[in-house]
Amino acid sequence: MRLSTVRLPAGGTAAARYDGDDLVLLQYDDVGALLASGKDWMEWAARADGDRLPLAGASLAPVVPHPNKIICLGLNYASHIAEMGRPTPQYPTLFAKYDGSLIGANDAILAPAVSDQLDWEAELGVVVGQSARHVVPADALAHVAGYTVVNDITVRDWQHRTREFLAGKTFESTTPVGPALVTPDELPAGASGLDISCQVDGVVMQHSTTADLLFSAAHIIAYVSTIITLLPGDVIATGTPGGVGAGRDPQIFLAPGQEVVTRIEGIGELRNTVTADLATPPG
Amino acid sequence: MRLSTVRLPAGGTAAARYDGDDLVLLQYDDVGALLASGKDWMEWAARADGDRLPLAGASLAPVVPHPNKIICLGLNYASHIAEMGRPTPQYPTLFAKYDGSLIGANDAILAPAVSDQLDWEAELGVVVGQSARHVVPADALAHVAGYTVVNDITVRDWQHRTREFLAGKTFESTTPVGPALVTPDELPAGASGLDISCQVDGVVMQHSTTADLLFSAAHIIAYVSTIITLLPGDVIATGTPGGVGAGRDPQIFLAPGQEVVTRIEGIGELRNTVTADLATPPG
Repeated sequence: MRLSTVRLPAGGTAAARYDGDDLVLLQYDDVGALLASGKDWMEWAARADGDRLPLAGASLAPVVPHPNKIICLGLNYASHIAEMGRPTPQYPTLFAKYDGSLIGANDAILAPAVSDQLDWEAELGVVVGQSARHVVPADALAHVAGYTVVNDITVRDWQHRTREFLAGKTFESTTPVGPALVTPDELPAGASGLDISCQVDGVVMQHSTTADLLFSAAHIIAYVSTIITLLPGDVIATGTPGGVGAGRDPQIFLAPGQEVVTRIEGIGELRNTVTADLATPPG
Repeated sequence: MRLSTVRLPAGGTAAARYDGDDLVLLQYDDVGALLASGKDWMEWAARADGDRLPLAGASLAPVVPHPNKIICLGLNYASHIAEMGRPTPQYPTLFAKYDGSLIGANDAILAPAVSDQLDWEAELGVVVGQSARHVVPADALAHVAGYTVVNDITVRDWQHRTREFLAGKTFESTTPVGPALVTPDELPAGASGLDISCQVDGVVMQHSTTADLLFSAAHIIAYVSTIITLLPGDVIATGTPGGVGAGRDPQIFLAPGQEVVTRIEGIGELRNTVTADLATPPG
């Protein structure tokens, strides 16, 4: 089953199930609300009927527009660890984003006026379906609602202004999440072994496989659940493979007008155009 | 005006205004919902009448239980920067917590089984009252709803497992926020120049003044608003002065049974007892 959060022509959003060329609208404001509705959400969503919208031309919101937590991993592919010049980590490197940074699968990536170092990071997204606290890796995947595509767009100079990544990772309207949540039954266990790529204006910048994750989805869920309770709708961005703009020689960064296409095999693609943020920053 | 979020005897919570020895219950589930209700929340809350609870014995929830953002600063007092052995930063060091880490002013601090390095960090909390995007420091304080007390309780070894602080900063039920939001009219501009302290079992561990903040409340709000829109109810923890357990020789950490008292002049005090988390961590 594939689910999206779709913007309604009359305003607002709704959770929706893919059915051929249609989206079947479900009685929840978004996929996050559906997942929070209870243990039987998957069975219910698979059978529910409702109004339909044509999939073609639908306006997609972030799959979960307002997760309680957005948990991101740094340094989780050997190829990216090498290009950033870091040692192989013993523990997952965790940082956060705020939901104001999220955009839909085809929305504009807002390029902030305060930087010219906007960079791409194609990532597998894991969406939590059931609360998880103190779970072991062997049980962790039972807490997954499904998988999605994230591009952890990064303002590279702001990321490195201090030791903490957050400032460069949570700029307004930068991070596409979508197009859909794909339930685990349609994918390999832990969404491992899937082709993942990022293209900029048609040039392949990143190309890897989710089999190369240093810490798997199950390991990450178990680790985070030792710290805090994972809740339905929480989004985990599992880190990016090599090929980011900052890791190249010479470095390359995104400019307004460029198109970023982020794909994961069996899940789908994000297609976002970079657009200058015209709001005036403080003087 | 002083506002708290109080747990109701019949279940649930409510925003409440202090009135002598009473709390006047307001028609919002918590202070966050009150702040999100619109521009006139302060005028409305000052006049509203409702059921009353005696302040004595009231059970306080975190002032804002579910902020859209919890934004924390590291390295924002010269005395703490020195004890952590870091250079004076040019930019605010920002990191996040998730709301599952928040507790009320008198709740138990849950000591995780996976660490014996639980440490204290008394901090001035700033609560956002009006959305802020691209504001300059001179206008920033107009976006403040009020000030509160935070203890950014930290699992020190998990904080330093990787370069990113998040893992050690967001353990479940560790971070008291309260007891009240105090509106700006009752405090000096930016809540500067207030006595701030942390005691553990009656021993003064931290004692400083909020006048020593390297980046002021106004500066922090302006800086963050360059990155992302601040929303009503967002909580900013402005960093801690010297005297944390990890900065001592020998180091001292918290143990179950100890009482942590965190005070800021003119705002109030948090009084929390450390309690072992008896949940079983993954094997």
